[in-house]
Amino acid sequence: MSVREQALKTNRAYQAFLKTGTTRLKNAVLDTIAEQIASDKDYLIRENRKDLEKGRQDGLSGALLDRLALDEKRIAGMIGACREVAALPDPVGKISDMSVRPEGFRVGRMRTPIGVIGIIYEARPNVTVEAAILCMKSGNGVILRGGSSAFHSNLALVQILRKALRHHGVPEDLIAALDSTDRKAVDEMLVQDDLIHLIIPRGGESLIRSVAEKSRIPVLKHYKGICHVYVDGTADPGMALRIAVNAKVQRPAVCNAMETLLVDEAVAPVFLPDLIRKLQEAGVEIRGCERTRAIYGKDVLPAADADYGAEFLDLILAVRVVSGIDEAIGFINTHGSAHTDAIVTRDVARAQQFLNEVDSASVMVNASTRLSDGGVYGLGAEIGISTDRLHARGPMGLEELTTTKWVVMGEGHVRE
Amino acid sequence: MSVREQALKTNRAYQAFLKTGTTRLKNAVLDTIAEQIASDKDYLIRENRKDLEKGRQDGLSGALLDRLALDEKRIAGMIGACREVAALPDPVGKISDMSVRPEGFRVGRMRTPIGVIGIIYEARPNVTVEAAILCMKSGNGVILRGGSSAFHSNLALVQILRKALRHHGVPEDLIAALDSTDRKAVDEMLVQDDLIHLIIPRGGESLIRSVAEKSRIPVLKHYKGICHVYVDGTADPGMALRIAVNAKVQRPAVCNAMETLLVDEAVAPVFLPDLIRKLQEAGVEIRGCERTRAIYGKDVLPAADADYGAEFLDLILAVRVVSGIDEAIGFINTHGSAHTDAIVTRDVARAQQFLNEVDSASVMVNASTRLSDGGVYGLGAEIGISTDRLHARGPMGLEELTTTKWVVMGEGHVRE
Repeated sequence: MSVREQALKTNRAYQAFLKTGTTRLKNAVLDTIAEQIASDKDYLIRENRKDLEKGRQDGLSGALLDRLALDEKRIAGMIGACREVAALPDPVGKISDMSVRPEGFRVGRMRTPIGVIGIIYEARPNVTVEAAILCMKSGNGVILRGGSSAFHSNLALVQILRKALRHHGVPEDLIAALDSTDRKAVDEMLVQDDLIHLIIPRGGESLIRSVAEKSRIPVLKHYKGICHVYVDGTADPGMALRIAVNAKVQRPAVCNAMETLLVDEAVAPVFLPDLIRKLQEAGVEIRGCERTRAIYGKDVLPAADADYGAEFLDLILAVRVVSGIDEAIGFINTHGSAHTDAIVTRDVARAQQFLNEVDSASVMVNASTRLSDGGVYGLGAEIGISTDRLHARGPMGLEELTTTKWVVMGEGHVRE
Repeated sequence: MSVREQALKTNRAYQAFLKTGTTRLKNAVLDTIAEQIASDKDYLIRENRKDLEKGRQDGLSGALLDRLALDEKRIAGMIGACREVAALPDPVGKISDMSVRPEGFRVGRMRTPIGVIGIIYEARPNVTVEAAILCMKSGNGVILRGGSSAFHSNLALVQILRKALRHHGVPEDLIAALDSTDRKAVDEMLVQDDLIHLIIPRGGESLIRSVAEKSRIPVLKHYKGICHVYVDGTADPGMALRIAVNAKVQRPAVCNAMETLLVDEAVAPVFLPDLIRKLQEAGVEIRGCERTRAIYGKDVLPAADADYGAEFLDLILAVRVVSGIDEAIGFINTHGSAHTDAIVTRDVARAQQFLNEVDSASVMVNASTRLSDGGVYGLGAEIGISTDRLHARGPMGLEELTTTKWVVMGEGHVRE
């Protein structure tokens, strides 16, 4: 089937689901998917082994093979995701801001699905299930385009998803996968702007950049996470230490880990030695500015210009002494990636200034950047974190997979 | 100056305005702009005459020359727009959905400007002022790219806008205009995705389509308005007549005018003769389906397939008899442009079904499609009407020129 034909079918299925897709039906489908994944567990692991074998032959790295692998725990994770999404409130149909206009008619906004969503992703087969069920619960059709390395795993999972739809009388094309692993299929998908309404690429920066450049369809992107913690002159030293260590060390390979630590010159001589020592004890390589090294130079490498604004995703940290909050904010807005940035301070005016002026998706006072997460924020499961500014910014949950339409209720009202 | 240099300057001005752009300052700038336009009225009219003269030499149509022309009334309109936008509430800084998470920190969403917005538009010089002041009031930087036919008018207006900014100590590059009328300047603008955050094209479909295809920056588009009115079998005949005539005749050349009338077969024989007669009396050319013509054929042309889904923008109407609400909804979702569609009915279940299932930016019960408008909805001035689904759908006011960021207020909270 051509990409165009698939998009037509999924668009038609989405239209039909607008009519039939009650919350009860969606949750029943989710239950069936969970049961089916559980009962097909061995089959899934067998299909996954084919991918792993091919990956080994193709010389995939250990990290990529690990991402690709399905085991009992990961399958339990997918089943858990189905239960979790079933338990989330359904955003569709909610009407907000309903007001009566002076002429006497009512105007409000109703949450609706976005339409058909294309998901382009790489090695992890669990994305197949998680993305599909979040799109379905929010009433959208979804066309999945997974990485060729997970071909057999994804095919098996999509079969389960579609079987569950059929079982409940929902057109199976509501959830579809491109049957070609040809790169041209992605290019063809990105120009179907009359049938597909949103593209979400999940993966490395080169994938995302290439999708954003080619797509005629709106794209919600997640580029880099270059997160900063700024320790203000009034910060509680113990709190600054706890937050800095957590933000860097707790899980360094993820996008909300701290990459650069900024310290107010007023307290740098007092705070930095302890901060650097504790971070080094946790295994962190420190790359400091000249002033940092003048204050505490032991095992501190000189920071190159490129270290500021670098996404290390590793136990490496750039440290810099700044003249105060204005320089810190300017530095973050220039060198950051507008993902998540935090201040540690006891001063309420500086806290407010930081919240107002740091131009990032998440801005924090006295908290670790690692808290930037849909689950932690209370959104339930998240389909990604947007570093875009339009439509969705930061963690994207079910509500971010919907849009609104205006509803007008008149009694024969016309334009005078 | 290159487009890149201008984008850098406007981005820097936007960053600075994040710090200084209080509501009081913004409104003071708006007052100054209004005063300046009033005192420079004669100068504006003189500059506009240069454009009109060149337009006549270049053989512009009467309609285009009319759009281009500035007179006392249009200048008063621009001054009125400044006063109106000053009176609107400032969306920036508003925090919503603030909740306390189980761990004890607070999470909420704060409204912020989008960033730098590029506006690409055609002949009307009033767009220069209206777009610039809406972007400024919502805290954004703006780069304007007007049509070459309005070159002198736009230049004069932009000078006034920038003078007002300087007068209040705001960097003048917060409002900028591309100084080249070369088409390549637009192409260069559309790839500055690190500096410009949103593109709003305003003009004909070919302009919008070309911008959407080339842009790496998110685009908020307004394609066609192919609006439907469906007269249900339970409709009040007098109301159906009033709404149909208003939707078609009150201002046929605009995007929220009705282009296709659908009538339930249950009442078509009773309703159609009167409906068609009244529309014809108002000067409307009727193009009907076979069943329409069988019921009332007098001066009704046969509708071609292409008449359904056509944007006439004129006193022409396609009419079709349908088997009921399901066919009507299917027809609208297939042939419409997802702009504005209305049902006339007394049946509450059908009203609800129409609201739920018609997949358009505005969906109406017992009201004229002509009411689809930011001012009528209570948004104040509008910068456009989006037929996109992401970020903003339907009329776009000040709030749609903002986005949100997550704000987190902890007391030393870290990720466990």
